[in-house]
Formats: sequence, structure tokens, C-alpha cells
Amino acid sequence: VAKRLEKFKTTIFTQMSTLAIKHGAINLGQGFPNFDGPEFVKEAAIQAVKEGKNQYARGFGVPDLNSSIAARFKKDTGLDVDPEKEVTVTSGCTEAIAATMLGLINPGDEVILFAPFYDSYEATLSMAGAKIKAITLRPPDFSVPLNELKSAVTKDTRAILINTPHNPTGKMFSREELEFIATLCKENDVLAFTDEVYDKLAFEADHISLASLPGMYERTVTLNSLGKTFSLTGWKIGWAIAPPHLTWGVRQAHAFLTFATSTPMQWAASVALQAPESYYEELKRDYKVKKAILVDGLKAAGFIVYPSSGTYFVMVDHTPFGFENDIAFCEYLIKEVGVVAIPPSVFYLNPEEGKNLVRFTFCKDEGTLRAAVDRMKEKL
Amino acid sequence: VAKRLEKFKTTIFTQMSTLAIKHGAINLGQGFPNFDGPEFVKEAAIQAVKEGKNQYARGFGVPDLNSSIAARFKKDTGLDVDPEKEVTVTSGCTEAIAATMLGLINPGDEVILFAPFYDSYEATLSMAGAKIKAITLRPPDFSVPLNELKSAVTKDTRAILINTPHNPTGKMFSREELEFIATLCKENDVLAFTDEVYDKLAFEADHISLASLPGMYERTVTLNSLGKTFSLTGWKIGWAIAPPHLTWGVRQAHAFLTFATSTPMQWAASVALQAPESYYEELKRDYKVKKAILVDGLKAAGFIVYPSSGTYFVMVDHTPFGFENDIAFCEYLIKEVGVVAIPPSVFYLNPEEGKNLVRFTFCKDEGTLRAAVDRMKEKL
Ligand SMILES: CSCCC(=O)C(=O)O
Ligand SMILES: CSCCC(=O)C(=O)O
Repeated sequence: VAKRLEKFKTTIFTQMSTLAIKHGAINLGQGFPNFDGPEFVKEAAIQAVKEGKNQYARGFGVPDLNSSIAARFKKDTGLDVDPEKEVTVTSGCTEAIAATMLGLINPGDEVILFAPFYDSYEATLSMAGAKIKAITLRPPDFSVPLNELKSAVTKDTRAILINTPHNPTGKMFSREELEFIATLCKENDVLAFTDEVYDKLAFEADHISLASLPGMYERTVTLNSLGKTFSLTGWKIGWAIAPPHLTWGVRQAHAFLTFATSTPMQWAASVALQAPESYYEELKRDYKVKKAILVDGLKAAGFIVYPSSGTYFVMVDHTPFGFENDIAFCEYLIKEVGVVAIPPSVFYLNPEEGKNLVRFTFCKDEGTLRAAVDRMKEKL
Repeated sequence: VAKRLEKFKTTIFTQMSTLAIKHGAINLGQGFPNFDGPEFVKEAAIQAVKEGKNQYARGFGVPDLNSSIAARFKKDTGLDVDPEKEVTVTSGCTEAIAATMLGLINPGDEVILFAPFYDSYEATLSMAGAKIKAITLRPPDFSVPLNELKSAVTKDTRAILINTPHNPTGKMFSREELEFIATLCKENDVLAFTDEVYDKLAFEADHISLASLPGMYERTVTLNSLGKTFSLTGWKIGWAIAPPHLTWGVRQAHAFLTFATSTPMQWAASVALQAPESYYEELKRDYKVKKAILVDGLKAAGFIVYPSSGTYFVMVDHTPFGFENDIAFCEYLIKEVGVVAIPPSVFYLNPEEGKNLVRFTFCKDEGTLRAAVDRMKEKL
């Protein structure tokens, strides 16, 4: 294995989903629904395959999907973007992240991110040869330590990467925090990369796109995807929205990472993004019920549950149960309780910082959530 | 744009397909069929979507597809590989190439490839920080200059990359050439990367997998895909087959480039790969007819046509028409003749070496090929 990837292990999502199958445990680890996506979107995919939309798509996206993405972004943020010059369709947001890093970051550039972080950020920054600075968000509210962030910016800082709503904590960056970050970016000529794949799963307050703050669009790459919002995580449709000069870098990397994304899935994604607002409202209503089942159950089982205002994840503290760290706790949970969760220490540069925490997802049907909760109440 | 991608332009395939649409020209440029893939494969995709196979696949592939790939490789090469430890499913062969380079090549490593080469080889090697040495295959037969190749190997050589059947020339590496390469690899402890996406389009002789030569499997990454063989280039299903120690590097890069590939498309790909031998025979029979139409037409139009024994491409010399270079010729061909081809000078480190050449594809229905040929006979 090349040096740039030496320190990484099999991703924790794969490790945990494999263990879930092996032990027949209920999987509240990796974030994929155990229910299906909407019929109208599935039907659109079936039609696309039938109609012969099966050859290479245009590299940066089938025109209809680029337009649908731009239209939704306009609805969400008020920003007008050119679907032909500022939208790039990728094979999932994971590829959009990789293309952003490899397309825009040079060896030696510093990039600031917030721990805990989705593991691919660190790995793709390593591929790009970046220096990583991680600012830790701490429980109970995971708020941004503003002074620490400010001191982290140097003349070598090329980008600040945020994720809101935030996986794995469920934190949503507040307007004040976003404004602080925006000011730092503008004053120091720093780019912003913002992963907003959970934007439609914002339960307490409206999601705010970093790009929508004054003066930010021109220095921001906004990353998003279809999978979470449409319960079709396996379709792997993502995208990057950025002004033309940044889109150029993203597209050049994308052209050589995958060239283009599955054509029939893109046509279906375009139909999905034209869903009426009622679709998103219903999705949120359903998820609120699921969230309540999980959160109440985790509390009843004895966890310290931290507030989650977005995403389909909840972060808890397992220390009441007396385990040494998150890995030991999760092993016990799988083998003795029959539930899989994600140990978040891998999402920190310093794993110690995550050792008391565990992440659960509630993107499962209510029966599954109840069964998992019952097991934990009984056996923990 | 990051320095690693500065020298690259919009891929020639995108440039030419865009011009084809703009000028209403017949597109014999980018290699995608203008007919559809087989019904039984499309039907399998439709079933997978219907049945709810729509969530994240296992990162390195849905188990059935890994098994189908291993079974086909066994049929083709006689080699037994472990589908769980030696097969990685990727988002097209383009991603398999990127994952191989980023997963196995370190900055400063030398990699030897053969010009003309598929453009993503150079770009992904640049991402990996490799030093590229290109050995030029020259017309009329594009044979490997063995002594030149031998002298190119140094103590820093990490890998030799081949592509057989070869895009854009249609050359197939002979057993003697493959044995020479194998010996070089073994004597100098060099890896082999072999892109064999056109393996089922071998018209004159059987395709030989480099991995099947004695002592080679353990040092070879074999890359392949679904798109060419099943006329479904837009589905973007590729794979890498390699011994476990090399698979580890490929998988680690893949995990952070895309994480996983479209789930319903993978299920359908698995069904496709179980096709009986008669499917491949019919495919070849159809392509032989198409090839004859194009080759005869190009000769009648006045080109010097080089023999192509595999792939769905033919390389020709345009000098009889008196243009300065391949770009100028292709521009005239689009605007005045109404046919799009690929100017291959971008596939050389030194573009001068390709300036007399043009690549045409015959992966189009017979009527389209005849119409293109008629235009060229009339207007050139
Ligand atoms: C590849 S897993 C993608 C992210 C996610 O779903 C998770 O954090 O569980
Ligand atoms: C992305 S184009 C892939 C290769 C091909 O089809 C071509 O060489 O035309």
C-alpha cells in the first residue's frame, strides 16, 4: 500500500456492518436505511434503463440533473448558479470530497477541519498531501471553540472544511459560528468546503448553507448527495457546487477519478430532486418519530444522550457502563447485547478524545429501533 | 486547480462528444455504442431496483458480483482467485485505475507505460506523484520496441502498465511481448498493471491475460469492466483483480475515492457476467461486420488504415489529405465532413508523435457507420 494510505484501516463502517452480519446483531451503525426509497424515484430509474439511457453520461453530469441540482440550490439558498459551469455530478458525495481535495489542494497546504470528522476527509487530504489541523468539537453541545479556530489559521491555510448538519454528532453549525468562519475565510483568503448531505434532516432549526453568507459563494465548494434525503444510499449520486474557477479543479480530478457517474441513476436523481416540499416534510416527520424512539430508549437504557439537531445520528456517552473505551464498549454491545453502533474514536486525530462516545443511527424502521432499544434496556 | 492537474485539459472525449452534438456530426469519437445493452441485463437492473437493492453495497462489491467476476476470470485464465480477498468492484475501470495508482504508487516511483495511452493513466499517475516513462508504439504494427523497454527499467521502476487489446491502436500484445514484459517484471521486482477492458473484443487471436503467465499473478493488478462487453458504458461498473497484498492498496484507495459502487447496477452486472459463451461469440460476430464496414470505407475514402486486431477502434493516417496535424484534420472532419473522430496526439507525452494519426470507433449501428463512411468518401 502506498504511504499516503498506510495509517488507514478498513473503514469503521465496513468493519461494523460486517460484524453486524456475522453476529446477527441489529445494525444501528452505518447510516443506511433498512427501508426503501420512494416509488416515484425507483420508477424513474426503471424507465431510464428501459429507455436505453445506458451509455456514458456527459462527464460532469446529464444536463437535466445539473439543472435540477441548480434549481434545488436556488430554492434552498436563493443563489443562482449556472448548471453547466458550476455543478459537477459525482459518484456519491465521497467522490465529490475526493475530487475537491485532489483538484484544489496542493502538497503542504493546510486544511482545517473539525473533529470528530467523517473518515474520508482525512484520507483524501492525505492523498492530496495536505497538512491537517483538527479543531475538536466537545460535548455536550459540540460548539466551535472560536478562539482556537482563529489561532489555527496561518498564511498556509488553504481551506476550512465543515459538515453541517454534522456527522457523527448531529450538531448544526449556528449562524454565529458560520459567520465567524465566513469572516475568517474572507479575511485570510481561505476557501471553504462544506459537506451538507444531511441538509434536509434538520430538526430544530433551518439548515444554513455556508455558501449563502455574504461574499462566501465565490470561495465555497458545497457538497451534497441524493442518498440520505431519498433513502437510496446505494445509488451513489453526489455533487459539488462551486464557482467556475473552483469547479474547474473539481471537474479535472473527477474526470480522472471516475470520468462519469451511472447514467440511469442520474436521470432518476433528476426526477427525485423535483420532489415537492411535502416530500421533505414527510421525511422529517417520519424521522422525528424514529429519533424519539431511539433517544428515549437510549436514555432509559442509561446512556448520557447529547442533543442532536440534525442528521440521522445521535451521539451518546457510554461511561455509565464502565468500559475502558468506545471500542471495548462496542464489542460488548455487539456480542452480548446484539446491537451494532459506531465507535467514534477513529474520527479524531487523537483517538483518546472520542473514547467515551458512541454513535447510533435512527435510519431504521420503528420496529427495528424498538427491538434494539429493548435489547439495550434489558442487557446493559 | 491543484498543480498535479494543471497540465491537463478537458478530456478529449468530452471535447469531441460536445462538438459532435454542437455540429450535428456523426460521432465516431468517444467509444460508446449507439445501441442498447442486452435485455436480460437491463431486466436484472430493473429487478434489483424493484426488490429494494438500493442501499450501500459492501465497499469492495456485492458478494454475488465478486463471485461472478472470479468465476469469469477462472474461465478466461484458468486462475483461481478468492472473490472476497482478491476482487474489488469499482465505479468503472477509470476508478479502478485511479485506485491502483493512488493505492500502490508512491511519489517518485517510476511507472512505464506505452504511448499512445488512455489519458487517465497519465493524470492518475500525476496524482500519485509518479515519474512517467513512456515507450512509443509506432505504426504500422505498434509492436513493442523490446530493447527500448528493457533500457527504461531502473531500480526506481515500480510498475509497468499495459493495455491489451490496446486503445487507441487496436493492437494486441503478442505472447512474445507479454513474456518479455513478464521476465522484466520478475527480474527487476516490478509490478504489472494491465487494463483489459476490451478482452472480449479480440478479433484475430485469443486475448492473453498478463496475469496468466507463470509467476505473474502475484505481482499483477488486472483491470476490467462491464461497459464495453455489454454495451452499457453508462453503468460504470469496473473491477480490479490482484493478490491480497496488492488488493489491500487498491481497496484502501477505493474506500476513500467512492466508498462503494451503485448497488442495483452491481446486481445486474453479476447476472451479465454469467452470460453463456454464445453471448460473446455473437457480440464479436456483430462487431466484425461493423469493423469491415468502417475499415473498407476508410480505405475507400483514402486513409492509410493500420491493422486493428482488438477493441472497437481503428487507427488511421490522415496525411494523404494534407493537413498539418491531427487537431486540424479533426476540425475539418467535424465542420466540413460531419464526422467526429479522436485526435490522438493527447495520448503521447510528446504530441508530435501522434500528429499524423486519427482514431475512429465502430461501436455504432451499421447504418450510422455507412452514413459516416459515405460522407468521408464524398467530402474528403
Ligand atoms: C460510507 S458510510 C457513509 C456515511 C454514513 O452513512 C455513516 O456515517 O454511517
Ligand atoms: C471516458 S471515454 C472511455 C474510453 C473510451 O470509451 C474511449 O477511449 O473512447
